[in-house]
Amino acid sequence: MTIHKSALSSMSTSVQPPATFQRVVLGHGGGGQLTDVLINQLVLPRLGNPALTDLLDSGIMNDGSLALTIDSYVVQPLFFPGGDIGRLAVSGTVNDLAVSGATPLGLALSMILAEGLPRQILERVLDSVAATAAEAGVRVITGDTKVVGRGQADGIYITTAGVGKMEPSPHPHPDRVQPGDVLIINGPIGEHGLAVMLAREMPEVQSVLRSDAAPLNGLIGQLRTCVPGVVFMRDPTRGGLAGVAADLAARTGYRIILDEMQIPIRPEARHAADMLGLDPLDIANEGKVLMAVRPAEAQAALNLIQSHPLGRQAAIIGHVSTEIDGLCVLRTEIGGQRIVQKPYGEQLPRIC
Amino acid sequence: MTIHKSALSSMSTSVQPPATFQRVVLGHGGGGQLTDVLINQLVLPRLGNPALTDLLDSGIMNDGSLALTIDSYVVQPLFFPGGDIGRLAVSGTVNDLAVSGATPLGLALSMILAEGLPRQILERVLDSVAATAAEAGVRVITGDTKVVGRGQADGIYITTAGVGKMEPSPHPHPDRVQPGDVLIINGPIGEHGLAVMLAREMPEVQSVLRSDAAPLNGLIGQLRTCVPGVVFMRDPTRGGLAGVAADLAARTGYRIILDEMQIPIRPEARHAADMLGLDPLDIANEGKVLMAVRPAEAQAALNLIQSHPLGRQAAIIGHVSTEIDGLCVLRTEIGGQRIVQKPYGEQLPRIC
Repeated sequence: MTIHKSALSSMSTSVQPPATFQRVVLGHGGGGQLTDVLINQLVLPRLGNPALTDLLDSGIMNDGSLALTIDSYVVQPLFFPGGDIGRLAVSGTVNDLAVSGATPLGLALSMILAEGLPRQILERVLDSVAATAAEAGVRVITGDTKVVGRGQADGIYITTAGVGKMEPSPHPHPDRVQPGDVLIINGPIGEHGLAVMLAREMPEVQSVLRSDAAPLNGLIGQLRTCVPGVVFMRDPTRGGLAGVAADLAARTGYRIILDEMQIPIRPEARHAADMLGLDPLDIANEGKVLMAVRPAEAQAALNLIQSHPLGRQAAIIGHVSTEIDGLCVLRTEIGGQRIVQKPYGEQLPRIC
Repeated sequence: MTIHKSALSSMSTSVQPPATFQRVVLGHGGGGQLTDVLINQLVLPRLGNPALTDLLDSGIMNDGSLALTIDSYVVQPLFFPGGDIGRLAVSGTVNDLAVSGATPLGLALSMILAEGLPRQILERVLDSVAATAAEAGVRVITGDTKVVGRGQADGIYITTAGVGKMEPSPHPHPDRVQPGDVLIINGPIGEHGLAVMLAREMPEVQSVLRSDAAPLNGLIGQLRTCVPGVVFMRDPTRGGLAGVAADLAARTGYRIILDEMQIPIRPEARHAADMLGLDPLDIANEGKVLMAVRPAEAQAALNLIQSHPLGRQAAIIGHVSTEIDGLCVLRTEIGGQRIVQKPYGEQLPRIC
């Protein structure tokens, strides 16, 4: 099947971010096209350097031997089925190091607290930070606490940074991706974002959906040791699988094919997404990794991932094609094709 | 002169933090005794490990070869005489690495923005981050941006983390401090906190006071190369000189003597502190470092510091005495003595 170029072109440019903006909107923090605008127009012209401009999950430094990553977490509510802001912060930072090919050496944790926050809430969050750090086998070695007035923050904001040691082997990087590489994800998509959205927007709805937030460094470490053909990894958080796949296509210049039939998604997640009017591809995950693997090693990688508790439902969901148009194309269940775009802004704010 | 022990004891225990608390108050973020309560009661029992529990400005990892630090900045107003939140964030992180004996390798920058923030404000802050990073000779190699709704944050909150390479020589550390060591500060105190407070609380007052926010890694690097007898360094930010000196006394168990006559302070700062009803010793600095130096090298250290643009008004302000009571004592200008305590909470919130 081929897609008519002009049709593709008009589809892919149908929603373009504004050339400029005067005020920050929620979508600038959504990890989609509007975030790209903010980074490309404001941040990179001022702070750009090779490590930053590579726009990976971690910045690489010290002659390629160390990785550094940082993320702020502003999720609301603080506690949701399957996780909380503490679990999210530790998992997100550990995962950003792991997908960059780094083994975590230590974490830093900074909290901005709103005056009046109940001590019990803070204790629960710190309990979760401790439990998740233990699960990941990492330590919080430094931290900071600031308090702002009521109405100047919403409960707790957490920022975590992590340092990792880069493994000596070739590291996963989009530049290593080639036509024929197979795309694998370690389980069903959309569950983090949907669990948070349901907890916030429809607290009366009973659902079995739970956030997938989990530290993936154990799974990824095993995989990198045993399957050298894993050439690219990224965790599809804000912007979802669509964001990561569209970015990979744009960056490599190859067409990325996703096969909708093969993308694992629970029926409950599909129903919840339908109810909320969202595309599951756009929804944030916090315990998933999208990998590109050399075809000869794809089955070995899949077997290994499926043998890990965090990868039981892993699946091959697509591949890198030889066509050079930098688009991500979804082969739909009904046999059609559609362009997958990086989400424009954010479906709902404060999802992580 | 000696101080009667029972009098000291009653003075030093006259204001004690509550044994427990039910809600977070602004003082928990002030860097004083209430912050210690929060850390000791909530954080360390859950996350404690040798690196974190050392409670230095950076956590040391990777067999002592790397330092990691993190701080959140919530200063209000965002721009003030002598600086802004961007300059503060970069300087603070660089300084925390430098006083730990580390050379910065890279910075991470995470922003939490409030919806509606004017683009121009964000541009000015990023300009300042870039200029200060260039001044310090460091790079921002990774970052993150989140946006929260109006009324869920106040303009911009910045969290910066930094990684540094520990120099091979013995590192500055409170455990190395001995009786006889000389205390040096690189210039006049209180100017950051006062400049911010005046800008916020009395914007109609015209003052020549400016924040001292500056990256000190150049000065400290020279000093560590040329004067091996610098055994302790700490930047007196929140909690001021009083907080750092009282902490050093408590930690080493020695009495720390400060000589009020020798502590550099501009007349404008003294007047501003009087006007605001504050003790200059308690007020935050963002371009100052308190050092303990072996007596034989004190003059060499002072000369070197004074030859640096950020140390022209450096002075010897006290020493470590042989008495073992863990108190910090100020010899006042009128010939008396008083106990210097770590500030209780925070004179005014959101100073950094």
